[in-house]
Amino acid sequence: MEVITRVAAMQELCLHLKRSGKSIGLVPTMGYLHEGHLSLIRAARGENDIVVMSNFVNPLQFGPKEDFATYPRDPERDNRLAEAAGVDYVFAPSGAEMYPEGYSTFVEVKGDIAEKMCGRSRPGHFRGVTTVVLKLFLITQPDRAYFGQKDAQQAVIIKKMVADLNIPVRIVTCPIIREADGLALSSRNTYLSPEERKQALALPRALSAGKEMILKGETDPRRVRQEILRVLESSPGIRVDYVEVVGGEDLAELGELKGRVLLAAAVYVGKTRLIDNIDLEVRPCTAPC
Amino acid sequence: MEVITRVAAMQELCLHLKRSGKSIGLVPTMGYLHEGHLSLIRAARGENDIVVMSNFVNPLQFGPKEDFATYPRDPERDNRLAEAAGVDYVFAPSGAEMYPEGYSTFVEVKGDIAEKMCGRSRPGHFRGVTTVVLKLFLITQPDRAYFGQKDAQQAVIIKKMVADLNIPVRIVTCPIIREADGLALSSRNTYLSPEERKQALALPRALSAGKEMILKGETDPRRVRQEILRVLESSPGIRVDYVEVVGGEDLAELGELKGRVLLAAAVYVGKTRLIDNIDLEVRPCTAPC
Repeated sequence: MEVITRVAAMQELCLHLKRSGKSIGLVPTMGYLHEGHLSLIRAARGENDIVVMSNFVNPLQFGPKEDFATYPRDPERDNRLAEAAGVDYVFAPSGAEMYPEGYSTFVEVKGDIAEKMCGRSRPGHFRGVTTVVLKLFLITQPDRAYFGQKDAQQAVIIKKMVADLNIPVRIVTCPIIREADGLALSSRNTYLSPEERKQALALPRALSAGKEMILKGETDPRRVRQEILRVLESSPGIRVDYVEVVGGEDLAELGELKGRVLLAAAVYVGKTRLIDNIDLEVRPCTAPC
Repeated sequence: MEVITRVAAMQELCLHLKRSGKSIGLVPTMGYLHEGHLSLIRAARGENDIVVMSNFVNPLQFGPKEDFATYPRDPERDNRLAEAAGVDYVFAPSGAEMYPEGYSTFVEVKGDIAEKMCGRSRPGHFRGVTTVVLKLFLITQPDRAYFGQKDAQQAVIIKKMVADLNIPVRIVTCPIIREADGLALSSRNTYLSPEERKQALALPRALSAGKEMILKGETDPRRVRQEILRVLESSPGIRVDYVEVVGGEDLAELGELKGRVLLAAAVYVGKTRLIDNIDLEVRPCTAPC
């Protein structure tokens, strides 16, 4: 495995690999790898000749009061884990390499899918995400790029950007990986005190309660949302940022639950903001009742 | 020569050509070809295995009160001229093919270079340009793309986008082609009445007067700008939109004239908006005075 820090070197290598007929899988990360990232790497390893993992804490997707400075970093451990999981090249540029002095070009998906949910709580976040992801695509020229379903809204927005801009890449989303007790893996879980770590379980518990309602036949998205909210608001240490029950493809408001449905929530546990979601396919019941 | 109207077909073909080791030159146009376009095609023909010309009147770069509906179109003549000049593939998509229902992704170069000059007169114009040009780059995968120096600000902004987003394409700008009497070629010249056609000559005449001052030793950009303005304002039928004397690389304000300098102006002749410019390299005089 090789670690590359320069944009020009990474791009030249990938253009050369493409010309020689190799397929490239890209796993974009902000490092501090956990099993979620490793599942993306393994998926990429199974489908591509070459696996590139980017490791870049992207300043553009953090708000001025957010945790860019304190975001956890451990590039040496990341490199060991990446190599063991089958990465061929780690692309780990500096901030100045990605955004030189005078940088001023931005890519933005406009409209409801980018303005609601995390878009409302984190203004500018998705503009930072789409801009860096487009740059990473142009630098590493992937055939396929792998994103976690944990960032469900991000995946929807990136798919929209790819379709709108005609980017020749296939976006693959991989399922959320959870701890044994249900908490979704996140590099930010490291911020939680032992007490907060326990309180955080209300998030997957609330979403599961919503899913249970749907499995029992509830078809009104507002009732499901109310149930998720009820569980969260009755849980100590939890402050709700948002709860949404929306279409899984386009995050649209639903009159009734059918097709692909996303139950998504963001909460604060102490000062730590956590997101989680469950997506499921809701089909009309065809069995005799 | 082949005419392709579908994004997917054009992209598939270009990805295939790239994989088989061919270099691609792209000449983006809005059609209604004149010698300016043909000079771009000939430049592309000399440097690439495959020449793709796009012919697309991009609605996104026209303001609501601008001339999208009346912009001159003659695709059959364009195809004949393109073929004769050496184009291999014309990419001529419909509006709905480039911007399907619900399209919502935009690329924007922010800051002074996009806000002044034509950016001030035509809000949203350059966002439309950068968005369509990025799409065309992603669809046709060019090694080199050819733009006319007539749209000097556009060329500066596209070079900035290419550098910022790490797009693996070389931007080639080609000199302005003029009629025998000095008027810069433009598809919009067709809007001019015979009377306006004569009045329009004030535009190249004013810029030439500015250039003459510099060649005679003037180093103050404000005096050169005043001279260009004076010629334009004393010319019948001309309404000035802007006159700028700025750095040729970055359109920056100059304290004194040195290095690459751009003299640029936009005027209305009747209802027709025309732009023109002269760029020159100003070197300190080393001869004994």
